[in-house]
Amino acid sequence: MKDVKFLAGRANWIKGSALADVMKKAAELRAQGRELISLSAGDPDPNLIPRSVLGELAKEVLENVPASVMYTPANGIPELREELSKFLEKYEGYKVSPGEIIITVGGTGALDLLGRVLIDPGDIVITENPSYINSILAFEQLGAKIVGIPMDENGMRTDLLEERLRELEARGEKVKFIYTIPTGQNPMGVTMSKERRKALLEIASEHDLLIVEDAAYNFMRYEGKATPLKAMDRDGRVIVAGTLSKVMGTGFRIGWLITGGAIGKKVLMEKSPVDFCAPTISQYIALEYLKRGYFEEYHLNKGLPGYKEKRDAMLNALEESLPDAEFTRPIAGMFVMLFLPEGADGMAFAGELMEKKGVVVVPGKPFYTDESGGNAIRLNFSRPSKEEIEEGIKRLAELYCEKF
Amino acid sequence: MKDVKFLAGRANWIKGSALADVMKKAAELRAQGRELISLSAGDPDPNLIPRSVLGELAKEVLENVPASVMYTPANGIPELREELSKFLEKYEGYKVSPGEIIITVGGTGALDLLGRVLIDPGDIVITENPSYINSILAFEQLGAKIVGIPMDENGMRTDLLEERLRELEARGEKVKFIYTIPTGQNPMGVTMSKERRKALLEIASEHDLLIVEDAAYNFMRYEGKATPLKAMDRDGRVIVAGTLSKVMGTGFRIGWLITGGAIGKKVLMEKSPVDFCAPTISQYIALEYLKRGYFEEYHLNKGLPGYKEKRDAMLNALEESLPDAEFTRPIAGMFVMLFLPEGADGMAFAGELMEKKGVVVVPGKPFYTDESGGNAIRLNFSRPSKEEIEEGIKRLAELYCEKF
Repeated sequence: MKDVKFLAGRANWIKGSALADVMKKAAELRAQGRELISLSAGDPDPNLIPRSVLGELAKEVLENVPASVMYTPANGIPELREELSKFLEKYEGYKVSPGEIIITVGGTGALDLLGRVLIDPGDIVITENPSYINSILAFEQLGAKIVGIPMDENGMRTDLLEERLRELEARGEKVKFIYTIPTGQNPMGVTMSKERRKALLEIASEHDLLIVEDAAYNFMRYEGKATPLKAMDRDGRVIVAGTLSKVMGTGFRIGWLITGGAIGKKVLMEKSPVDFCAPTISQYIALEYLKRGYFEEYHLNKGLPGYKEKRDAMLNALEESLPDAEFTRPIAGMFVMLFLPEGADGMAFAGELMEKKGVVVVPGKPFYTDESGGNAIRLNFSRPSKEEIEEGIKRLAELYCEKF
Repeated sequence: MKDVKFLAGRANWIKGSALADVMKKAAELRAQGRELISLSAGDPDPNLIPRSVLGELAKEVLENVPASVMYTPANGIPELREELSKFLEKYEGYKVSPGEIIITVGGTGALDLLGRVLIDPGDIVITENPSYINSILAFEQLGAKIVGIPMDENGMRTDLLEERLRELEARGEKVKFIYTIPTGQNPMGVTMSKERRKALLEIASEHDLLIVEDAAYNFMRYEGKATPLKAMDRDGRVIVAGTLSKVMGTGFRIGWLITGGAIGKKVLMEKSPVDFCAPTISQYIALEYLKRGYFEEYHLNKGLPGYKEKRDAMLNALEESLPDAEFTRPIAGMFVMLFLPEGADGMAFAGELMEKKGVVVVPGKPFYTDESGGNAIRLNFSRPSKEEIEEGIKRLAELYCEKF
């Protein structure tokens, strides 16, 4: 049966991710028996996550808590929201009531739910350029037009943001919100400076816009400071999408949306028919993880130093083998963005690197909201081992030197 | 800050569930120390689910499988899709390839994803009248207009469906699909007869419409037969939303969508930015549960007889205490629909029953797609114990006799 005729008009807004092609190609090569080094994932390291401890928690909870196999309220288990409220005060420096927190299916789920109540087709969403591809796709699926603001080593160029807002307003365009990943940005690995954060809040206030703060990498900070926008927010303009994905593991699908008022109410109404609730067993594991202080014991004290070591390994390897190349130097997050020489084709380079050298990286281009970024390559250092990072960068540098 | 002005126009399509009010009221009374008997849940019985066994599986998997804390492919773990394909052939009697299966965040997630690629604002979705409230709300959120077809003890009245389709077509209205819960329907507890299933497929074929089969209760069948529509489908017209929720527990959020072709491709493209993947730990637990034959060992052999006993307890109690009342007699599912005398107010009755007698039931009205059903009360027998069922129906009958 020809089923394409049943698709909704808005299915045209749904686009495939260019990343999917890279992943598919890698899976094919692996199926053929090729051993690949992956610097491509957006995952933490399963060996820096206390899996046995989480396993014990899961067993305890499933055995002892009948509710652990049942639905939870749409906004999540009350005890988890209370624990999270304390956690955010302690580690993020802002106070929100448990009632303002909605537990979601990962940070992805939080952004999708929010987009569904805020975005009308044709609305403009402002992002960094480049920005996280899945967020861009999520907003585009809802009919948003994405306007990207260039970044430098201090994050979004707020001077250009202001210019752009004035242009858009002059044209009568409707800007819905500014989406930003201020800390450890994906894909750039850049952390927004304090001054830029202040400027961003001021601009949002002046133009009366919401800010959506994607806090995905806030707990992956290796040095320096990065006060969350939410902690600097005086007029309740910042909505937070947060997650335990990078801390406990991406597969648990535990995220949260912090908002309140009319938006929070609508999100909650909308949520049951969309996903009913975030996975209950994951919610209980998260509850116990936070309550027992495992965030400090396992993540801050053990996981984070491991990631820092890997970040250093990647930066050192790049500096040694590609001393003239341009790349970002993250103080937070999971990614380094490497720039091939001006005019080089990152997509082709990534393809060749996988085929010839057995190293998987992600071309940066799909993350860009305009025609730029063709020479960018996103490198992940959180998932591979130190040895894989060193070997991977060595092989990448070989191809780089062969070609440029 | 007044945030209501930021809401999208389409947020107007998002409506609260009348059930939420019942649940909120019940939670308030419980917080005040009232002990309530609940005949309201849509959950299986946590004591008929092998929680310790699931706990052991969770522990094993988290310890031994590094991938268990990571993202999975958007359509789910390949091994789970393979296992499910065998499972569906064995227990549902139809063959689908693993590639046609998309693992979703519960059956709810499957329906939402499907709606997002099929429904344009103003499209008509046909359902049974009454139908599952969250499905109605999910489709309405996407801008669908719901047209409900009356039911009798054999399920959807296909004669009336045909009439209605002709009317709609004559008016030039666009019908997108027919949504049905043929087995153990929620809220009616009715199972569609074989003849009606055949008629439904013929009508869909004649009018060239998709059928969306909600198979939520297919594994909660106590007697009789109920061949899935998908197993009778000759022209690939049936899309299935299935789930392990009633078997393993609603909280794991493991469901699936069976479709293929252009629709399957679009759903998959759409999925990553919406939820990334179904919870990984739940996927692995489901995989082991199916692979080790626990469905037969724990669900078919132990769980199901327990639910049957509770169904019998409810029907016996109703027959004894309300011999003249009208109610459905389910051979599958989790619900009995009780009808108060014509003209009685089921919402008011449910409120009074909770306040005065401490018994929580769900008014049927919110499940109806038109103004009917004001006297309906949905009763759940899967979650409460046999004793709670008997005591609950006794108290319900007391109020019934006081009032009518």
